[in-house]
Amino acid sequence: MATAETRIARFQDGHGWEDVEPEVYKSGLEGSGGWKDIVRQVLIGKRNEAIAFQVRYFEIMPGGFSSLEKHGHAHVVIAVRGRGKAVLGATVHDIKPFDTVYVAPWTPHQFLAAKDEVFGFFCVVDTERDRPQPISPQEKASAVAAGAVVES
Amino acid sequence: MATAETRIARFQDGHGWEDVEPEVYKSGLEGSGGWKDIVRQVLIGKRNEAIAFQVRYFEIMPGGFSSLEKHGHAHVVIAVRGRGKAVLGATVHDIKPFDTVYVAPWTPHQFLAAKDEVFGFFCVVDTERDRPQPISPQEKASAVAAGAVVES
Repeated sequence: MATAETRIARFQDGHGWEDVEPEVYKSGLEGSGGWKDIVRQVLIGKRNEAIAFQVRYFEIMPGGFSSLEKHGHAHVVIAVRGRGKAVLGATVHDIKPFDTVYVAPWTPHQFLAAKDEVFGFFCVVDTERDRPQPISPQEKASAVAAGAVVES
Repeated sequence: MATAETRIARFQDGHGWEDVEPEVYKSGLEGSGGWKDIVRQVLIGKRNEAIAFQVRYFEIMPGGFSSLEKHGHAHVVIAVRGRGKAVLGATVHDIKPFDTVYVAPWTPHQFLAAKDEVFGFFCVVDTERDRPQPISPQEKASAVAAGAVVES
């Protein structure tokens, strides 16, 4: 398969990017405690581009959240829309547009939209990466104490 | 050297990111025809992070431009501030916030700010990459015909 040609993914306000399919996001982790109202769009990295990373855009509806998880690969998150929070280990942080988060390997993490705002962010990751793994009871307790949401 | 810990680079409107040094950008390419009024900030990828890519933010002042160049590595550019243009090979394209450009290997390219607007974009690249190489007279003529700026 030939590698991808130069391409512009046009942003269409309110409709995402031209020729990029929104996917309802499901965590790779069974029994993680769940996720809620989160959509993923893979902008770059699924068309045999000559790069070792993927650029995705996630949007979480008001009150929604990603799964609380950890894994051996790192994340880079660039917030661009609305307000949210990041639970990182046993800490929680308000996140506003253009705040950029480096999530190191094995840091338990969860992103949550504010109750009344959509929260959108780019997430860049290595193309070759491991799957999420269960967090320990101690990690879970610390994250929940900080503000993580885990459905039982 | 230990790999980097989880970290938030806080955006401070009008001042870039906390603990990230703006650098006056200079092209790696001698005799490229120049660049003008462009500043680079490397947000992630210079602190021994466990990733194979770097996330940089470039800002071009009104009327400024990056060097017209080509290289074997690909770029991903995510526009976020103001308006600009991208010259890609022998074509030119208006770029607005959240338009995302995949620049394939060896495509001659240049980014230009509008005359009256700052143009800001994230650029993600593989950490291991080659240096820019001279474009051919034919490539240069085609790019200039499309709207590239090359100082003689």
